[in-house]
Amino acid sequence: MTFHNFAKPFLYLAAALHLALPVQAHADSAAEQASTSALAKDYDRVINQLVTITEIPAPPFKEQARGEWMMAEFARLGLKDVTRDKEGNILAIRRGSAPEGTKLLVVSAHLDTVFPEGTEIKVTRDGDILRAPGIGDDSLGLTALLAWVRAMNTAGIAHENDILFVATVGEEGVGDLRGVRHIFTEGQYRGRIGAFISVDGSKPARIVHRAVGSKRYRVTFKGPGGHSYGAYGIVNPMAAMADAVRRLYDVHVPADPKTTYSASVVSGGRSVNTIPDSISLEVDMRSPAPDQLKRLEDRFLTIVDQAVEAENFARSTQYGKISVEKLRIGDRPAGMTRVEHPLVKTAVATLESYGFEPELRASSTDSNVAMSAGIPAITIGTGAGGGRAHAVDEYLNVARDDFIRGLSAGLILVLRAAELDYEDD
Amino acid sequence: MTFHNFAKPFLYLAAALHLALPVQAHADSAAEQASTSALAKDYDRVINQLVTITEIPAPPFKEQARGEWMMAEFARLGLKDVTRDKEGNILAIRRGSAPEGTKLLVVSAHLDTVFPEGTEIKVTRDGDILRAPGIGDDSLGLTALLAWVRAMNTAGIAHENDILFVATVGEEGVGDLRGVRHIFTEGQYRGRIGAFISVDGSKPARIVHRAVGSKRYRVTFKGPGGHSYGAYGIVNPMAAMADAVRRLYDVHVPADPKTTYSASVVSGGRSVNTIPDSISLEVDMRSPAPDQLKRLEDRFLTIVDQAVEAENFARSTQYGKISVEKLRIGDRPAGMTRVEHPLVKTAVATLESYGFEPELRASSTDSNVAMSAGIPAITIGTGAGGGRAHAVDEYLNVARDDFIRGLSAGLILVLRAAELDYEDD
Repeated sequence: MTFHNFAKPFLYLAAALHLALPVQAHADSAAEQASTSALAKDYDRVINQLVTITEIPAPPFKEQARGEWMMAEFARLGLKDVTRDKEGNILAIRRGSAPEGTKLLVVSAHLDTVFPEGTEIKVTRDGDILRAPGIGDDSLGLTALLAWVRAMNTAGIAHENDILFVATVGEEGVGDLRGVRHIFTEGQYRGRIGAFISVDGSKPARIVHRAVGSKRYRVTFKGPGGHSYGAYGIVNPMAAMADAVRRLYDVHVPADPKTTYSASVVSGGRSVNTIPDSISLEVDMRSPAPDQLKRLEDRFLTIVDQAVEAENFARSTQYGKISVEKLRIGDRPAGMTRVEHPLVKTAVATLESYGFEPELRASSTDSNVAMSAGIPAITIGTGAGGGRAHAVDEYLNVARDDFIRGLSAGLILVLRAAELDYEDD
Repeated sequence: MTFHNFAKPFLYLAAALHLALPVQAHADSAAEQASTSALAKDYDRVINQLVTITEIPAPPFKEQARGEWMMAEFARLGLKDVTRDKEGNILAIRRGSAPEGTKLLVVSAHLDTVFPEGTEIKVTRDGDILRAPGIGDDSLGLTALLAWVRAMNTAGIAHENDILFVATVGEEGVGDLRGVRHIFTEGQYRGRIGAFISVDGSKPARIVHRAVGSKRYRVTFKGPGGHSYGAYGIVNPMAAMADAVRRLYDVHVPADPKTTYSASVVSGGRSVNTIPDSISLEVDMRSPAPDQLKRLEDRFLTIVDQAVEAENFARSTQYGKISVEKLRIGDRPAGMTRVEHPLVKTAVATLESYGFEPELRASSTDSNVAMSAGIPAITIGTGAGGGRAHAVDEYLNVARDDFIRGLSAGLILVLRAAELDYEDD
């Protein structure tokens, strides 16, 4: 994947897609200027759409209403092949000048929030601050997608590669990246994805180029249980759980790539005078290095088996043995896009040209799936900052100039990324 | 404590306590015969009272209504000094022929059930089976106390020592023996108790002469908590809890006297991707040997401190250390009445004379407090059997002949125990 030559401006006749704008220009500095100028003039509509999107509830696994709204907007903007796939993702193409069917750039934001059904979602404004659950994570990303397409249309911008705009389902916790996972495993474009940009969150200077992978388990230790005095001496699932946690916490993991584990949630037992018959433990393991994550996961599973075996040896199994269920409740693949990769370099250069100091970060986002599949991917923020993501008092700063500067950097980054030669990678 | 000579019958003029029965006879075989014959004729009233008592709800800490009913009955039977102490126990004296103020025999049953407020309690009858929550544990015991006093009155029975009839509060789980504890620590008769018989449950052949003591703790490990990836490396209260459980489960306890521990209930943690800030563990320890129970309790408390210290050493405390709260949620004293003790021998001989095969058992009942104070004590059942105690389908067999035989054995045991010389012990 290399850069096309931005120094060579050329014109492209649009195939009468946008009747008001018959002529489109590839991204040169004049075209970029035109598009960001269109963005700036669009500020009020962008804010209105941000509020509208935010106020359509989109709890985990219930993103349909927000998805339908996005679908209608994609169609209204003249995007092609607007569809809702069977997982619930909304997809639409902005055709490039490259031959049909070649590699494309995905630009996505996620539909879902962390907020359960019934959460009151009403955007309130206090000066430059807009406040509502999910407004930054990720209503802002969805809003940016629409604003960018509108600006491209208004400025008559063309690009080399097709851009596949996507609103994904299931990015947050329990969704376990189900939307983007579907796109890469079963989706109709799965063989055509040349690069992937996820727009997620309100930090415009942040570039996520490493995907922290995670494996999450709910391990349930079961035993016969019984009266604490009468049945004393029988195996206790609590002892097996404790042994597993102890063995896990003796494991040394690398500091770089930062690899971690956490025994996070535990529950079980009926009453203080009863040997429990079931203890459930939830464990989280993470690493940006797939081999380290796999190594840790394997070790953890071995440890659980060892703890069960040790308990069945240590105490009586006359009323039954300890058994264990290992349920994987989360599986986010690890991965990385090298800092030397043209996609990351383009992002860094673009942010710098808009006055930002780029921060290269590791995180867990829709890009995890792309990176783990070896597709160049980054996750970027946009806008002008905010905070309290995942909290009901989440907020965004929408001060006009800063907000447009953040949106503009993202737009230009997308346009430049759409000029990259994915086949060379 | 020795036997009075049962072979020497003598008469005793009652101090006009029971006007219809001016003459009372000490317990010889004729007097015993008269009292059990009175019991047999009283069957219908006994069953009626059993139903009435059972249907007065008496949840833990809410025994007042049932207590007031018992208080009125004690008074109606001509018992003396009928009182409700400040813990809620109902007490009443049947005076003996011994000088006032000498040692007395306590005969108690407990008012409380395990069933929470709102539990539907309606006695249903199916042939010889009566069914209702709490009917055997311990409405039957309360019923027996009243039936025995009535039979003594009807038969004109006198006894050497005062008998203090008591309906206690707080025998079940969370009550933690608070009623009987009050009687032995602050009650007005605390210095006068020579022997103690608790009537509890429906197994007439069972003699509990060992008190299984218990110590119960809720231990809460607290730490700073944080993001499972971002804050990795900080102390985790889950690891401290697991370490404590592991160390506890390495402890060897004697098989005789049977000493036990159980890590029974655990809970804590917010979500799988969060290092928990609090983990709570409930542990039960039991032994009939006070020194073994104390030894185990001390060891457990040391283990908890060691686990906390080890975790604070093993991981970073930069955001805070692990701390621990050790809350004792149960404390039932251990104790024993030797099988050679006259009270136990009397119980065994009496049950055998009524055709039962006595079963000497260890349990945790109101007698725990007496035994731990060095007062001779046993817990006996009565009636004709039953089952499902602590369950809503609890039941009793009330087949007339067997039921009266069980009640009679208890009555005679009480009368014989009231002849023992407590001062000799």
